[in-house]
Amino acid sequence: MSEKTRQGNFFEDFRVGQTIAHATPRTITEGDVALYTALTGSRFALTSADTFAHSLSFPRSPVDNLLAFNVVFGKTVPDISLNAIANLGYATGRFGHRVYPGDTLTADSTVIGLKENRDGKTGIVYVRSCGVNQRGQIALDYCRWVMVRKRDPASPAPDTVIPELHDAVAASDLVIPAGIRLEDYDTTLSGSADLWDDYRVGERIDHVDGMTIEESEHMMATRLYQNTARVHFNQHAEKEGRFGRRIVYGG
Amino acid sequence: MSEKTRQGNFFEDFRVGQTIAHATPRTITEGDVALYTALTGSRFALTSADTFAHSLSFPRSPVDNLLAFNVVFGKTVPDISLNAIANLGYATGRFGHRVYPGDTLTADSTVIGLKENRDGKTGIVYVRSCGVNQRGQIALDYCRWVMVRKRDPASPAPDTVIPELHDAVAASDLVIPAGIRLEDYDTTLSGSADLWDDYRVGERIDHVDGMTIEESEHMMATRLYQNTARVHFNQHAEKEGRFGRRIVYGG
Amino acid sequence: MSEKTRQGNFFEDFRVGQTIAHATPRTITEGDVALYTALTGSRFALTSADTFAHSLSFPRSPVDNLLAFNVVFGKTVPDISLNAIANLGYATGRFGHRVYPGDTLTADSTVIGLKENRDGKTGIVYVRSCGVNQRGQIALDYCRWVMVRKRDPASPAPDTVIPELHDAVAASDLVIPAGIRLEDYDTTLSGSADLWDDYRVGERIDHVDGMTIEESEHMMATRLYQNTARVHFNQHAEKEGRFGRRIVYGG
Repeated sequence: MSEKTRQGNFFEDFRVGQTIAHATPRTITEGDVALYTALTGSRFALTSADTFAHSLSFPRSPVDNLLAFNVVFGKTVPDISLNAIANLGYATGRFGHRVYPGDTLTADSTVIGLKENRDGKTGIVYVRSCGVNQRGQIALDYCRWVMVRKRDPASPAPDTVIPELHDAVAASDLVIPAGIRLEDYDTTLSGSADLWDDYRVGERIDHVDGMTIEESEHMMATRLYQNTARVHFNQHAEKEGRFGRRIVYGG
Repeated sequence: MSEKTRQGNFFEDFRVGQTIAHATPRTITEGDVALYTALTGSRFALTSADTFAHSLSFPRSPVDNLLAFNVVFGKTVPDISLNAIANLGYATGRFGHRVYPGDTLTADSTVIGLKENRDGKTGIVYVRSCGVNQRGQIALDYCRWVMVRKRDPASPAPDTVIPELHDAVAASDLVIPAGIRLEDYDTTLSGSADLWDDYRVGERIDHVDGMTIEESEHMMATRLYQNTARVHFNQHAEKEGRFGRRIVYGG
Repeated sequence: MSEKTRQGNFFEDFRVGQTIAHATPRTITEGDVALYTALTGSRFALTSADTFAHSLSFPRSPVDNLLAFNVVFGKTVPDISLNAIANLGYATGRFGHRVYPGDTLTADSTVIGLKENRDGKTGIVYVRSCGVNQRGQIALDYCRWVMVRKRDPASPAPDTVIPELHDAVAASDLVIPAGIRLEDYDTTLSGSADLWDDYRVGERIDHVDGMTIEESEHMMATRLYQNTARVHFNQHAEKEGRFGRRIVYGG
């Protein structure tokens, strides 16, 4: 059998400080946006209507931030988490330049921490991943840690490096879209009269009504994001796996 | 628990003559059109090919009227029928200005009739709903009546007003696209040699071949239309409901 | 019952040399491309990103050849294979002019062979099908043979004509995109370091990881291609059929 099959990286393949440029640049289109709406039911006025975007001084509707996140995340999978056992956490995620249909996103990840687990078979990889548009502007970045298998349990453990991750992004580090105007923000069209000063710390909101997720829906979403993690796709393999079924990709 | 959860309107919240501007303006895109094709299998030459549209003097393929209808209908749901028990009927529906990709639709509804049911727990709400493009031109309008729950059975019944609804739209009230040319209409490309004068009143046509609808398909369509009616989405809740399963949105 | 129901062609309706212009011209859009990605998980850099296409001197990302093939194939179905029992084979398929979003494809098929089967109830139809863009340039062509039912087993057999089909398309008949530049081809962005001279005749490559196909996925794809073959859509009819279930369209 040929050796062309890509097995992905294992824990011992990562080095602190290493930067990995991920494959498959992706031009985001109105088609991606329509699928995102059909798969999530998103109803943000800003991302649904160019007219609403114009009223806030945007040139047109930007792409939902979470669509951009999922596309960038998908690019990291073949290099970072193809051999992952568990996606453990995220920190200091931040959205930068708005993404518009027609923009092309590429992504890279820098290894910022490594810690082998006591079982000697797995370790935790910490990365900072970044999505960039065709002009080199940052669309989003975030830190993520994930438990990854070792190829060979006998390979030596690396020095443990655990990155310092802040509990929150400082307000001064958030990116406010340049030129945004909020004077004409229309709460009838947005569908909610609740504005910033109507929310209280600790308030609990019941987001009424659930949605049952079908297999085809999570697989279409995951493929749209070009995420190749095998656990989401193969019922015949996964029925023998830890959970007995495919795992819904949760971002 | 916070009071931000939107419960929708109940029967006693409606007043004859009231006009409700619905939320979430929506720019229709080529992505929506592709999904509409993938979900319905539509094969109208006019909406499938710009070249065919040009041959009839349209600037490009317009959006299928029923896609526009479903998008407008979806906007009415959070205000009109979130507490509906049954969608009862439509009358005098009419398509106006063609909708093209890039157009933005908004919608409003005027209450034209109210009738409380004898059980004292529900009533019928009659509305005239209208979808308008970004230039204020009417894309479509229609009357609809729907049975809606009362919040409080003890609340008094409103005066009964039943609107006069015509059996058909008068031919003189139909909107013919300005400038349309039919001289070059190509029945080979359209896929049917049957034209207006080939149809007879009372003729029955067997639309051969059925389609089985999967849960994910009707949910993707319903979300694409940003229709929030809960009965379409939550299998865990609906299995305890009247029908024991999710209801396919039927327009 | 009206006679407007389209039954499709049966074996005895075909004549060698006959050319059939197929219905429903189709403008390919970014929406179709997004759905193709969501349904297949395609990750070709050339079709995923305009920036990558620019680096090879394409004006923008072309549409995946197989999306174009499936759209053209779909147009042939109502005329060629609505009464097919089995799709038997393809030969000498060739992609010509690149297809870009905004291009409109039409298709025709020429009957190049006929052979009645011994059972007297079916026969094999050989066609050469061709997809053409709005400028009359060939996007793709291919030969296909398919077993089709006879309407009337008593109808006489046609003269047998079996076309000569080459085992392969000669390299000199392949279409190389004009102006393509490969100097800047980026194997990091493409996701594979393997280039032409890395492949050996006879090499076997394990395309790791399977995908379970859901009913809604193959039906959405088939409808996107406007393919009307009934065996893909109706579970209630197909459960009584040869296979007891819907058949996944496989191109």
